[in-house]
Amino acid sequence: MNNYKAVPGPLLSTINSPDDLKKVSADQLPQVCQELRDFIIDTVSVHGGHFGASLGVVELTTALHYVYDTPEDQLVWDVGHQAYGHKILTGRRDDFHTNRKYLGLSGFPKRTESPYDTFGVGHSSTSISAGLGMSVARDLLQKNNEVVAVIGDGAMTAGMAFEAMNNAGVQNSDLLVILNDNRMSIDPNVGALNEYLADITTTQTFNKMRDDLYNMLGYFKGAGEKMRKMASRMEAALTTALTPGSLFRSLGFKYYGPVDGHNVKNLARQLHDLKKVSGPKLLHVVTVKGKGFAPAERDQVKWHASGSPFDKVTGNSLAKKSNDKPVPKYQDVFADSLIELAKKNELITGITAAMPSGTSMLKMMEEIPDRAFDVGIAEQHAVTFAAGLATQGLKPFVAIYSTFLQRGYDQVVHDVAIQNLPVVFCMDRAGVAGADGPTHHGLFDVSYMRCLPNVVVSAPMDEQDLRNLMYTASRYGEGPFSIRYPRGAATGMKVSPEFEYITPGKGRTIAEGEDIAILSFGTIGNYAAEALDELKIAGISAGLYDMRFAKPLDTELLDDISRKYRHIITIEDAARFGGFGSAVAEYYSDKEDRPVQVIMGVEDRVVEHGTQKELHRELGLDAQGIVEQAKLLMEKQTSRL
Amino acid sequence: MNNYKAVPGPLLSTINSPDDLKKVSADQLPQVCQELRDFIIDTVSVHGGHFGASLGVVELTTALHYVYDTPEDQLVWDVGHQAYGHKILTGRRDDFHTNRKYLGLSGFPKRTESPYDTFGVGHSSTSISAGLGMSVARDLLQKNNEVVAVIGDGAMTAGMAFEAMNNAGVQNSDLLVILNDNRMSIDPNVGALNEYLADITTTQTFNKMRDDLYNMLGYFKGAGEKMRKMASRMEAALTTALTPGSLFRSLGFKYYGPVDGHNVKNLARQLHDLKKVSGPKLLHVVTVKGKGFAPAERDQVKWHASGSPFDKVTGNSLAKKSNDKPVPKYQDVFADSLIELAKKNELITGITAAMPSGTSMLKMMEEIPDRAFDVGIAEQHAVTFAAGLATQGLKPFVAIYSTFLQRGYDQVVHDVAIQNLPVVFCMDRAGVAGADGPTHHGLFDVSYMRCLPNVVVSAPMDEQDLRNLMYTASRYGEGPFSIRYPRGAATGMKVSPEFEYITPGKGRTIAEGEDIAILSFGTIGNYAAEALDELKIAGISAGLYDMRFAKPLDTELLDDISRKYRHIITIEDAARFGGFGSAVAEYYSDKEDRPVQVIMGVEDRVVEHGTQKELHRELGLDAQGIVEQAKLLMEKQTSRL
Repeated sequence: MNNYKAVPGPLLSTINSPDDLKKVSADQLPQVCQELRDFIIDTVSVHGGHFGASLGVVELTTALHYVYDTPEDQLVWDVGHQAYGHKILTGRRDDFHTNRKYLGLSGFPKRTESPYDTFGVGHSSTSISAGLGMSVARDLLQKNNEVVAVIGDGAMTAGMAFEAMNNAGVQNSDLLVILNDNRMSIDPNVGALNEYLADITTTQTFNKMRDDLYNMLGYFKGAGEKMRKMASRMEAALTTALTPGSLFRSLGFKYYGPVDGHNVKNLARQLHDLKKVSGPKLLHVVTVKGKGFAPAERDQVKWHASGSPFDKVTGNSLAKKSNDKPVPKYQDVFADSLIELAKKNELITGITAAMPSGTSMLKMMEEIPDRAFDVGIAEQHAVTFAAGLATQGLKPFVAIYSTFLQRGYDQVVHDVAIQNLPVVFCMDRAGVAGADGPTHHGLFDVSYMRCLPNVVVSAPMDEQDLRNLMYTASRYGEGPFSIRYPRGAATGMKVSPEFEYITPGKGRTIAEGEDIAILSFGTIGNYAAEALDELKIAGISAGLYDMRFAKPLDTELLDDISRKYRHIITIEDAARFGGFGSAVAEYYSDKEDRPVQVIMGVEDRVVEHGTQKELHRELGLDAQGIVEQAKLLMEKQTSRL
Repeated sequence: MNNYKAVPGPLLSTINSPDDLKKVSADQLPQVCQELRDFIIDTVSVHGGHFGASLGVVELTTALHYVYDTPEDQLVWDVGHQAYGHKILTGRRDDFHTNRKYLGLSGFPKRTESPYDTFGVGHSSTSISAGLGMSVARDLLQKNNEVVAVIGDGAMTAGMAFEAMNNAGVQNSDLLVILNDNRMSIDPNVGALNEYLADITTTQTFNKMRDDLYNMLGYFKGAGEKMRKMASRMEAALTTALTPGSLFRSLGFKYYGPVDGHNVKNLARQLHDLKKVSGPKLLHVVTVKGKGFAPAERDQVKWHASGSPFDKVTGNSLAKKSNDKPVPKYQDVFADSLIELAKKNELITGITAAMPSGTSMLKMMEEIPDRAFDVGIAEQHAVTFAAGLATQGLKPFVAIYSTFLQRGYDQVVHDVAIQNLPVVFCMDRAGVAGADGPTHHGLFDVSYMRCLPNVVVSAPMDEQDLRNLMYTASRYGEGPFSIRYPRGAATGMKVSPEFEYITPGKGRTIAEGEDIAILSFGTIGNYAAEALDELKIAGISAGLYDMRFAKPLDTELLDDISRKYRHIITIEDAARFGGFGSAVAEYYSDKEDRPVQVIMGVEDRVVEHGTQKELHRELGLDAQGIVEQAKLLMEKQTSRL
């Protein structure tokens, strides 16, 4: 089943590039779209993937490659979940079954994968900035290609998109922004902009009013000279003020739409016509996420992505049922613990930035709605909003993926750390994130948080400790507290219902040894625990210390360790540079007697996609890798003796 | 002169708190404002400071504290340059002459300084997020205070403000945002939003059109039933669509204004009335930056701040003239070198985010306007715009203060580093920044850049090397390149007109020694050079190595050093955790024979304001500090022998 390749329909099978697509007549475009949609559903129903977004833009994708001379004309897809059709039409149909698999196609556009992927994406709201850079470069280099950025309404709410629109609106470079308006990002969009867009597309008031006005003005044109002049002046001005899109117009864009995103022939015509329009312009396209797959149209959140095989018609899961009790995800442990804590402490609040499902904050939003906030794709705002809450004595828990917290980094520094406010950062998807790949791995948080004054940097080894660290954070009154934990299944251990306070900066001893001490930070320590037995067999007596905190360090324990061991290994699922191992090296740096330290962590390169297990193997961060490092270290020592 | 205290006028001298202000009659408010303005000008003319912004909001500040029950009602000032009047009216008048001086008042609102400073600021565009946090907390805690955020039109263009507006627009919490519209941030604002605001306030078109329309509708009301109904419906809708502020309305805010920001009595009345309006609301206040000081009104960029004494009436400088040739600033060296390089290589472009004067990018904007871009307060966009340019083969130099680049951190990671695009980051104001204090020090960039794959992290010791590193970056084709340099005067050395390529990862030996090696990173190395002589007198033979690169490290040189020395000191003007010293410690960590290393850098705490020299002294990072550390290290060694 793993090598299953969907069979493309008769037209799609002839299309290996946009050039092939252009040979198709306009009347055949709907059929191409149908086959493309079928191919996506067929493949994803077996291999999984993010396909709701891609189904929504089948027509738009087809129309874009039909009308534009890609890759000379440059398409920038925002986020990139919606680029499956784009990949299939640009020569990657035969590899599409490897999508999101280790060593296979990336789930996102990626520059090294294809010249049609003009800009690597993954995080939202970058496309307009990148597109503007491309169009300004085109002008400077005196070329004449087109540049198109396709951005969802969800991504449009992030500040970055606004910054880009605001700048594009005065640059006067030819750039087409396509607003793919489907009312959803992963979860339903929130925010005033979204309500505004809903107004534009769903109410008839505007159109009715405009018609009334034009009728009236027409009436005046038959009247006296003064009235006629006034009417003309007004008509010109009101055409601007009274058509939808005044928001975009006020940002300097010419606005077109809204148009039906599922009428491929019309779309192609509209795109063709828009080529003649110069300057920054926005085409508002209304689409349905999951279009053409009934279960996905009905439940767009659930069908944002699918991890397991399903029936292509009914959507029913085809995954084998297991009788084992499922192991909880860290995300569930997080959410359940937060709710438990919040019920006991009414100052506790929860904040997510457009990831209620992903972080499981949704549970709190449902159970304690007045204290749980989804602020939209707005990490900057999320952090400073939390800082504002904290100034009033509340205790905000901000759950943001490690990689997305990069978006709120200045706010962490400037609004939380410098002011020493008691905000708790729950950094989800810490470490390698899996199939989403380089843009989604959470590798830098230990380095970027550890350098900030006042911030506690912690990581649990298991779900019990995640609960305890959250409890500790809820009671820690001195300042910011961060907790990093990975995506997915926890250990499945039996968890005590009681919370325990862990003194910040206190690690714990898992096992004592003689030859080597392994100091672990976070869940990666479970590999080290696995490695102990094999090391014993190999005649190496290793101790294991779950340090829990990269800051403050347990210096007492570090002193004990340096007295006892001549060799240590530090291990973390994070960038080696500036992380936990680095903190230990800093601590030992000015000591005359100190152990030789091997810093195990993610090496200094871009890590591609794959399962967490595959990536840990590749990076040598699993039990096997630890055993190898330990043996190497002991061999070196022996050879010196 | 350093202790000069301005004498407050008769009314102002009675006002030691907002309570005192409230005892003044409304008719006396203009006099309070006049005295407040005089007091600010008088003080700043002697002591220097950012006063253009504060002069512009004298009336607004007075009206706010007159109408609101501060500090129970909470005022959040955005950026905070404009808070001088606020400080003077809230009990800090007698200390105001210490503003921005070492151990004196902060130049910005600061929570630890006064309960009236509800939120610490410095970076722009945080006030709406923080204010929303406060107002939501107020609702949850069932209190009934008011929350007011005051934000400039420049700060409104940053994405963060948009995110906050978008979220506030649906939260339905009582929050007043005051848009202080003065057409300026530090330099003139750029961007479509600014042009939109200019339209609202400066053209008469809208008002004229609205009047015309209302006349016409009135005419119809006398006509037949159908026409009359239509006219009524339209009037209601058009009142919304045709009054200024539709942009803010589309984000869910009730919009009021624009109103004259220099009529204090009216402002007080308007603020009083707005208390009755619930939900998110925006008051658009038009002010003149530098108001009341003629030279500042005429040249608002020049008078954003003043560093040296000036005549209170003419604005003429009272600084003593020196006949010495002035030492160039690093900013000038940067700008001149960039222009020189850009003239030879037409692919080079320059980008600033609203800091053309601060970074000196203005020079390139004037000399090569088509390749120099000011994108406004929009660091996120600036970085990804540069990435877009780089995809097309251009060579962008992005000049952003180290502390502000935190705003674009995710874009550095996601759009530049992961894609390995050849963008050059010129990180200005690296190290302690001086009088601007904690929010403006550039202490974290070494840590937050060094952990990212593909990124070169460099720092010149002097202006010659800044030129050479910029030249190197312009020719380095492999990926991102960062260069950090401090604010202000360079060394004044004679600079060669020729550029020299420095192999990335190659340090240089300044002096050989025997007892201790000092490894420096950046301009702080000049203190180490100073220290060498004194160390020699103390009988300590120290070597000095200007490492230039924190990444890649010069491992060959490090190996030489570890063979030669038993003790080393690393020094940098950056956070100790995760920085350059940390990189050296990581490198040595797994070596059996390695020197004892003292990591000198900025300790892990918030560093307050003062001159760079005062702060380096406090932090022990100057020549004296280095000498002390070296002596200590040698004493320890001796005591062990």
